[in-house]
Amino acid sequence: MKYFDDFSIGDRTELGSHHFKADEIKSFARRFDPQRFHLDEAEAERSHFGKLCASGWHTAFMWMRTLVDYRRREADGRRARGEPVARTGPSPGFRDLKWLKPVYVGDTVDFATEVIEMRPSNSRPEWGIMRVRNTGANQNGDLVISFVSTTFVERRPSS
Amino acid sequence: MKYFDDFSIGDRTELGSHHFKADEIKSFARRFDPQRFHLDEAEAERSHFGKLCASGWHTAFMWMRTLVDYRRREADGRRARGEPVARTGPSPGFRDLKWLKPVYVGDTVDFATEVIEMRPSNSRPEWGIMRVRNTGANQNGDLVISFVSTTFVERRPSS
Repeated sequence: MKYFDDFSIGDRTELGSHHFKADEIKSFARRFDPQRFHLDEAEAERSHFGKLCASGWHTAFMWMRTLVDYRRREADGRRARGEPVARTGPSPGFRDLKWLKPVYVGDTVDFATEVIEMRPSNSRPEWGIMRVRNTGANQNGDLVISFVSTTFVERRPSS
Repeated sequence: MKYFDDFSIGDRTELGSHHFKADEIKSFARRFDPQRFHLDEAEAERSHFGKLCASGWHTAFMWMRTLVDYRRREADGRRARGEPVARTGPSPGFRDLKWLKPVYVGDTVDFATEVIEMRPSNSRPEWGIMRVRNTGANQNGDLVISFVSTTFVERRPSS
């Protein structure tokens, strides 16, 4: 990751995408959110969704997983180029998680994150605090998930 | 689950508890949130947490998993007693997820949910909409996680 000081408000990062297959939708739902419209095609057709769709928690988790994979690739690239890798700190939480549209079987969701607020930490001068809007959009460009989170990002040592 | 009409504002349900062990904390973190203070005891001691602690996403997921297990037990009990089991519908999202304190290795977290708002659905008269506050508290009684979610719950057929 870049240092806090190298980010600007409005910076948008495309994290990667995930294709939601029936098997994965059902196995996630069996474990964490066993509602009929996440578990069975015929039941989903009779529900108001009309088609098998992923648990909202599954979509949230694929956002997290896609972020983790993105950060690993990005850190590997930085190390390969001899660039420093900034640390990230704990997150105090997130706000306004919205599942805006169902994620149906066969959908591909593109995940992204955008910086919406930045401030230095008063209590820990080596850290900056970034507020980011995290989103997922399906192959039609419709937002399916959105939430706002806060993270600590290391400041450039010289700053 | 009870029907929407059988709930009242202030109803609190103890969902169950989870004991956070080192192996599970690390394996969850490796998959979804590979930060040093979730992966390694020595690194965690050097971090500002001072001790291995669970990813916030891990705590959120154990809340969900505990709810699912609770609902299964509760529905089985209802069926065994010949009582109806109300359906729940999709959730449009949740708000204000806060990780209030770290969950350290060895902590036991009690999960609960409390009804804070109720209204009938205008567009779908067979459903009611409940807003609930979901929490987890550790063995010292300190809240570690809190968020507010909205769910559709089936109304009593006669209502």
